[in-house]
Amino acid sequence: MDETGQPQSDKRRIDTMEELSVAIGVSRPTLSRYFQDPSSVRSSTSEKIRRGLEQVEYVPNFFATRMNRKSTGMIGVIIPYLNDLFFTRLLEGIEIAAMQAGFTVITQCSHSDPAIEARAAETFMSMSVDGALVAPLGNHSDFAVQERLNARLPFMLVDSRPSTMPSVDFVGSDHMQSTGIITEYLSRVGDPPVFLAMPRVNFNALERERAYIAKMQELGHEPTIIGTEALHPASHFEAHGSAVLDRCFSQGQFTDRSILCANDRVAIGALHAAAKHGLDPGRARRGGLRIAGHDDYPLCPFTTPTLTTVAQDVEAIGRVAVQRLVEKIRGENNAQSQVVQLLDGVLKLRESA
Amino acid sequence: MDETGQPQSDKRRIDTMEELSVAIGVSRPTLSRYFQDPSSVRSSTSEKIRRGLEQVEYVPNFFATRMNRKSTGMIGVIIPYLNDLFFTRLLEGIEIAAMQAGFTVITQCSHSDPAIEARAAETFMSMSVDGALVAPLGNHSDFAVQERLNARLPFMLVDSRPSTMPSVDFVGSDHMQSTGIITEYLSRVGDPPVFLAMPRVNFNALERERAYIAKMQELGHEPTIIGTEALHPASHFEAHGSAVLDRCFSQGQFTDRSILCANDRVAIGALHAAAKHGLDPGRARRGGLRIAGHDDYPLCPFTTPTLTTVAQDVEAIGRVAVQRLVEKIRGENNAQSQVVQLLDGVLKLRESA
Repeated sequence: MDETGQPQSDKRRIDTMEELSVAIGVSRPTLSRYFQDPSSVRSSTSEKIRRGLEQVEYVPNFFATRMNRKSTGMIGVIIPYLNDLFFTRLLEGIEIAAMQAGFTVITQCSHSDPAIEARAAETFMSMSVDGALVAPLGNHSDFAVQERLNARLPFMLVDSRPSTMPSVDFVGSDHMQSTGIITEYLSRVGDPPVFLAMPRVNFNALERERAYIAKMQELGHEPTIIGTEALHPASHFEAHGSAVLDRCFSQGQFTDRSILCANDRVAIGALHAAAKHGLDPGRARRGGLRIAGHDDYPLCPFTTPTLTTVAQDVEAIGRVAVQRLVEKIRGENNAQSQVVQLLDGVLKLRESA
Repeated sequence: MDETGQPQSDKRRIDTMEELSVAIGVSRPTLSRYFQDPSSVRSSTSEKIRRGLEQVEYVPNFFATRMNRKSTGMIGVIIPYLNDLFFTRLLEGIEIAAMQAGFTVITQCSHSDPAIEARAAETFMSMSVDGALVAPLGNHSDFAVQERLNARLPFMLVDSRPSTMPSVDFVGSDHMQSTGIITEYLSRVGDPPVFLAMPRVNFNALERERAYIAKMQELGHEPTIIGTEALHPASHFEAHGSAVLDRCFSQGQFTDRSILCANDRVAIGALHAAAKHGLDPGRARRGGLRIAGHDDYPLCPFTTPTLTTVAQDVEAIGRVAVQRLVEKIRGENNAQSQVVQLLDGVLKLRESA
């Protein structure tokens, strides 16, 4: 840029290291060493290169300067789908932590398709990323590809993990704790809850369902689970929660019960079904319909009524996952010991329960 | 993979082209030609390489195979922030269209920070991406860096554009049309709307504000604009809409008016303020509070009441932007003529207005 903030198109554009070598009179191997580590060349040479670079329009090639390094400085991240503010917050946590640690994040989204997820893992291997964080799709993921990625480079699962990969490193929420505290809260201040589940392809929904059953049994209540079958294929979480409860309410079922939803997006659908049937969750002092969720989705403080939930510390999950992965990349932790870190959830009491 | 779906750790792992050349008995230059284009070597050699590759664990290096190509096969995309389902849908549209066109998308998020946005543009130049799509942050973006990117490679702005880059290629919504039809609808079936704006850093919000004024004047109504100042710094859209209307409703203002919000997230905040004040937007047959938005955010069918809005065809914006960019990359359109494509919005009538 010159002083007017305009791009300087009058500088000579240089595209290759060979051209640059001729233009500033420094050999190509020396230039190459300079771009990998400026302190590896004599200070007089370094100064000559620095001054030469100011006279030309040259952007060092990202791949060429990284090809022969042990590290590419890149972390590969796979998320299952984009249109979910839980995963965007997770990704934000990961990207900001990675940036602070000096890494460039390359994200690939699976778009709910196991073939795209598997291809993303292959892309990361071919790019020689320094490490990879994967939030898997669910039980239709191609875990053989992920095992291969895990065998090849520093690797961690985040958010959810399959029972078939018990020894892999993992950072996520402690669903026994998080679902436990909200089940206990709902049971203590009112009617023990019914669990509005999701079709069983999602590990976290399943873990929360199990945590709900365990806590209900501990409290001496009978667990009731609804919504495990998909009412229409590929339904979104909101549509699923809405459709399941719309059917129940139409049959006069659960209209005065406490309903704990597998996540907040399902709960937003549940609130919609309640409004459709003229029900007002959380309004009655004692008894009456109550609806609660899980995650603390960013919309929870703005729904009508506002949504009671248990917050996952999603930014922390992203941050801790990057910290543990960077330790693995740098060989700072014992390669023999498995890293598993489960973060606690926190109750967020609002109007709906 | 073997037949059990387990990774085959018994295959010999090969890390470099040199090792591969020795292992399968084909010269390194021939291998290099094969990885750039399998049809460029004799079919007997190609077959020998293919069979050789089956016997070893080798992943071709993404950078090495692309370094000497004219094309890296990558499209760089910059989005302003992640936690917004408008931008995740735009990104989904871009990624799926790019995948179908045979490109790998490298996305960098600006996380609302102009310095991160500028660094992402520099990263794309150093990566020699084939082209770049940028959804800019707003009037605090570093447009000098974007001008430089635009001068260097096929480049398009998507979603919003500054008045300072009038000649750059662009794909987005036609806000005159989209804001026009909802202003007209609200005026036709009831009270002419008040416009709930956003602090003036966002080009699209400003374009919609201008479109609202133009349509109101055309219809012979007096425009009224509220919410142009931020009530607290860095507030989210929902918090902004909620805070502005909470203050108005507390003073008895606008409680029976039609309110057109700059986007749906602002409108979700507006619905929250209405619920807090016991108001029920859209309930009265004629007169009474009505609230409408812009975008057709995925939550609109699930809010209470459901939100009337004008849908942007965001997947189409992503798809068309990729098509136009790929044409530029392939030199298929006239480099002298500017590409500007504005897509129409469609009314989505629901309960709130």
